[in-house]
Amino acid sequence: MPQVAVVTFDGFNEIDSFVAAAIVNRCRKQGLTAYITTPTPTVTSMNGVEITGQRSLEFVPEADVVLIGSGIKTRDVVADDALIDALPLDPSRQLIGAQCSGALVLARLGLLDDMPACTDVTSRPWVEAAGVEVLDAPFHARGTIATAGGCLAAQYLGAWTISRTLGEASARAAIDYVAPVGEQRATVERVFAALRAGEREPVS
Amino acid sequence: MPQVAVVTFDGFNEIDSFVAAAIVNRCRKQGLTAYITTPTPTVTSMNGVEITGQRSLEFVPEADVVLIGSGIKTRDVVADDALIDALPLDPSRQLIGAQCSGALVLARLGLLDDMPACTDVTSRPWVEAAGVEVLDAPFHARGTIATAGGCLAAQYLGAWTISRTLGEASARAAIDYVAPVGEQRATVERVFAALRAGEREPVS
Repeated sequence: MPQVAVVTFDGFNEIDSFVAAAIVNRCRKQGLTAYITTPTPTVTSMNGVEITGQRSLEFVPEADVVLIGSGIKTRDVVADDALIDALPLDPSRQLIGAQCSGALVLARLGLLDDMPACTDVTSRPWVEAAGVEVLDAPFHARGTIATAGGCLAAQYLGAWTISRTLGEASARAAIDYVAPVGEQRATVERVFAALRAGEREPVS
Repeated sequence: MPQVAVVTFDGFNEIDSFVAAAIVNRCRKQGLTAYITTPTPTVTSMNGVEITGQRSLEFVPEADVVLIGSGIKTRDVVADDALIDALPLDPSRQLIGAQCSGALVLARLGLLDDMPACTDVTSRPWVEAAGVEVLDAPFHARGTIATAGGCLAAQYLGAWTISRTLGEASARAAIDYVAPVGEQRATVERVFAALRAGEREPVS
């Protein structure tokens, strides 16, 4: 049963962590479960909401999928060697995704050395300063690594996670459920168009 | 400075509360602030995430805007007279919104006696059983009361809240920020088309 760590740091962006986690958790009955995974027992969001983590970082190496959330303190995260050492991501056996400034963490771990990435407009200069090409796109994936930019692109990371673990039909059903009423079909089509576009290699 | 209570009960849906709150909080520098407002010091989401409320229900009568979140225990909420008594909503001086099963709370308070509502497909039979006409639409507003259906329709409640307090330009900027990168313009247009459609009276 695949397990998903949604890594959530202090100062986190609520949309980024919770949209991805909640979409994945639409599939709990099918055995796919996402856990808010935090470096300390509690973390506080960029808007002051304190949450208790469901898993500690010790869960990260056990997880089948690791999604790195975003927030206002990600530059502190990548400057913290102990924190980075606690994130031993392995793209040969894990699916790895990053949302917005989460791309900085993947860059720090050397996971974006050979591929471009998506991030938000605020994080973009920092990701570029880390030597990573940033795309004008909401989602990009190559192999087992995906990045998304713009808070609501978290739905693309969620759909990608489900597609790659349970299959596209499950992902479509999850997006259909969370879509605005009356916009289900258009939302599903839009999400999967973004995933397909993001899985094509960009023209440089 | 307008303040927004995002009322969040035990068993809450994370997307519903946090998407609306985070979009509103894009406008904190303009003086509009949303607070996760809970009946107990902590509440636990439908997927097991414990959060600490930022405000208690005593904040509700002070708030300029009250958005009722959704969750898996809303039928228990409306059966709890003490909890309902702690929600003295006043549409003559407050903007009032409900997300998904939150419509049940507005119905219980008699706020939907004269207007149809939006809700999610799971809550629909319960809202109808409360005597409220349910629309096949993601968003409906009349005067100071709005309802939204489908988790991601929380962006419509967020945009409506900002539009009605700070104005449409601020709401457009907030949606632009949270939209997927490269899809900002299309997202803003889609959100405001949904708001305009939802502010027209439905043809019965």
